[in-house]
Amino acid sequence: MSEVYANRRSRLRERCTAAGTAAALISRPANVRYLAGAAPQGAVMLLGKSEDLLVCAEPPDDRPTEGRPDEHLRVQVLPRSGGDPAVAAAELAAGQGAEALAVEEHHLTMARYRAVAAVAPGLRLADLGSAVEQLRVIKDEEEISCLRIGAEIADQALGELLESILVGRTERHLALELERRLVDHGADGPAFPTSVATGPNSGHRGHRPTDRRVEEGDFLTVCLGAAYRGYRCEIGRTFVIGTSPADWQIDLYDLVFAAQRAGREALAPGAAFRDVDRAARQVLDSAGYGVGLQPVTGHGVGLEIDEDPQLAPAAMGKLDACVPVTVEPGVHLPGRGGVRIDDTLVVRPEADGGPELLTITTKELLAL
Amino acid sequence: MSEVYANRRSRLRERCTAAGTAAALISRPANVRYLAGAAPQGAVMLLGKSEDLLVCAEPPDDRPTEGRPDEHLRVQVLPRSGGDPAVAAAELAAGQGAEALAVEEHHLTMARYRAVAAVAPGLRLADLGSAVEQLRVIKDEEEISCLRIGAEIADQALGELLESILVGRTERHLALELERRLVDHGADGPAFPTSVATGPNSGHRGHRPTDRRVEEGDFLTVCLGAAYRGYRCEIGRTFVIGTSPADWQIDLYDLVFAAQRAGREALAPGAAFRDVDRAARQVLDSAGYGVGLQPVTGHGVGLEIDEDPQLAPAAMGKLDACVPVTVEPGVHLPGRGGVRIDDTLVVRPEADGGPELLTITTKELLAL
Repeated sequence: MSEVYANRRSRLRERCTAAGTAAALISRPANVRYLAGAAPQGAVMLLGKSEDLLVCAEPPDDRPTEGRPDEHLRVQVLPRSGGDPAVAAAELAAGQGAEALAVEEHHLTMARYRAVAAVAPGLRLADLGSAVEQLRVIKDEEEISCLRIGAEIADQALGELLESILVGRTERHLALELERRLVDHGADGPAFPTSVATGPNSGHRGHRPTDRRVEEGDFLTVCLGAAYRGYRCEIGRTFVIGTSPADWQIDLYDLVFAAQRAGREALAPGAAFRDVDRAARQVLDSAGYGVGLQPVTGHGVGLEIDEDPQLAPAAMGKLDACVPVTVEPGVHLPGRGGVRIDDTLVVRPEADGGPELLTITTKELLAL
Repeated sequence: MSEVYANRRSRLRERCTAAGTAAALISRPANVRYLAGAAPQGAVMLLGKSEDLLVCAEPPDDRPTEGRPDEHLRVQVLPRSGGDPAVAAAELAAGQGAEALAVEEHHLTMARYRAVAAVAPGLRLADLGSAVEQLRVIKDEEEISCLRIGAEIADQALGELLESILVGRTERHLALELERRLVDHGADGPAFPTSVATGPNSGHRGHRPTDRRVEEGDFLTVCLGAAYRGYRCEIGRTFVIGTSPADWQIDLYDLVFAAQRAGREALAPGAAFRDVDRAARQVLDSAGYGVGLQPVTGHGVGLEIDEDPQLAPAAMGKLDACVPVTVEPGVHLPGRGGVRIDDTLVVRPEADGGPELLTITTKELLAL
């Protein structure tokens, strides 16, 4: 483990050198954590010409959930009111004799960019672009193991909820209950705001819980995830409340299930993002649900809950082994509700048994 | 109520016109909500030359907690994959014949800034700075009433916690329990991550809950707040666990209490920020706790939990009536713990009875 962060930094340095910039300033928190092992509030990482540094406004938190700074990395804590770590890092870069500094233009605000430029006028600023995000796409087994534990935690929390009485409880209470269970089972916290959607809200992507209560006959869609050691996964299931689902509910469920299975089965090293998306999407499309479908049917997960790749009609690129993605088609019928089914899987070659399903809660239509 | 948002936009327009820019693009979510009544995910507000618009990537959420867009304002929802609302708004501004557009350089990333500049090359970009944040400092009675309700909710949640058994429970569980109670009592959600700190962690500003359990003889510091209709308040209290506090605990509590009272009593229209800070700080300073004190002893609250003004030694400016602020001095002794006491108050003139205390939970040292 001890060389992991240094190796990541070497790979980034190769990219920077190839692009003509010896030094880089990384400010996006997930990128800082990826390269430095931890990302204290506001900290930035300097990939320096002579030395790499983690520059912080306050000392790193010592909670295990926050990660620990790589022991091979010098950590510089600014004095109180020492200002913006990005500006301090740019000064250090100039002090190391760098002539150019790549910054994350998609993360730095214009005001911080100007302050960085002002403190080191001799430094030519370049755009690092999403170089670190690209490095983050393929995960190592350590990272996948964090995702796997996170998925187990989410499965446990969801399983316990299903054993309790649901009718009469509000979406907001169910969501809070799930989040408490995630923490009980060892999560750092929820990976994203837990979504619980009942009746007409069901099947709606990213629905934020309301005070609506679960009623007999409802579809109930739950989407949750655990953060574990910084890594975030996602599971979504739809259930029906009461003993006998209506015919339209069974039909819609079967359709979304077929779409989700098609998406899962399309996951393989070398598969184009858009082909995975199309596999799932065309099942819904051909049943007449093409209009109003969500723009993506899946996405990468890792230190952030929504990272590259995007599984979408216009996405460019192909899957690699060891890329964890969600497959999450859904249909929402305004006024009636709908179905979403969402798994996190790791792309694996056929020879290794094909895609590894991390979220193992059943996808049968359960009547609760 | 119906003219509130239009009036806010007029005041901003006056400032812009005075600064020589007829149009402004507001992207910071709290600022968008302040001017438009709601800030759907990613939405921006265009203060246009001929018409104001709320430009959204998705339709506004209809939950009351998210606010409702001002009915006098045209809402433009971009088509799917319609790109960045900021870019679309800049195009609209150019289409209205604006020659210059002020943007929030402290919020827009460099990449978005470049995209805005590229889409409307004839438009001169200027910096809006913190013009909207400055408008937000003085609250109207509607805003204060939301803060007051939020404070009542936080008081209720805290009061209920105090009636329960605390010894043996972890910081994380107590924090989750408090957040559930906030929602039970009608909060949109917690105003910020609830802080529960026991024993050696107590008194530490912004402590993030760990798995440490409450023990007999501990100080217990709790800091929480409710968000209500978007407005966020804050309360912090320190208790002692067990029947008889140690002498050092009583002495430290009395000292922080005296500092906090001095800060509260210094709140008045016209009082300099730094004088309020000094009133609280010098009590701790003269007792030998000057080194290692937190950089601010209080701050404004509103649509964000930490907004202007900052009550700090180097802060410039004076309080006005109807500015809600926290007063929250604290002392943390490494390895032993400490005390924080935190209230939210609204600055009011002497003739109106002086500062209005929103968070009314007792500040006696309770032994639980």
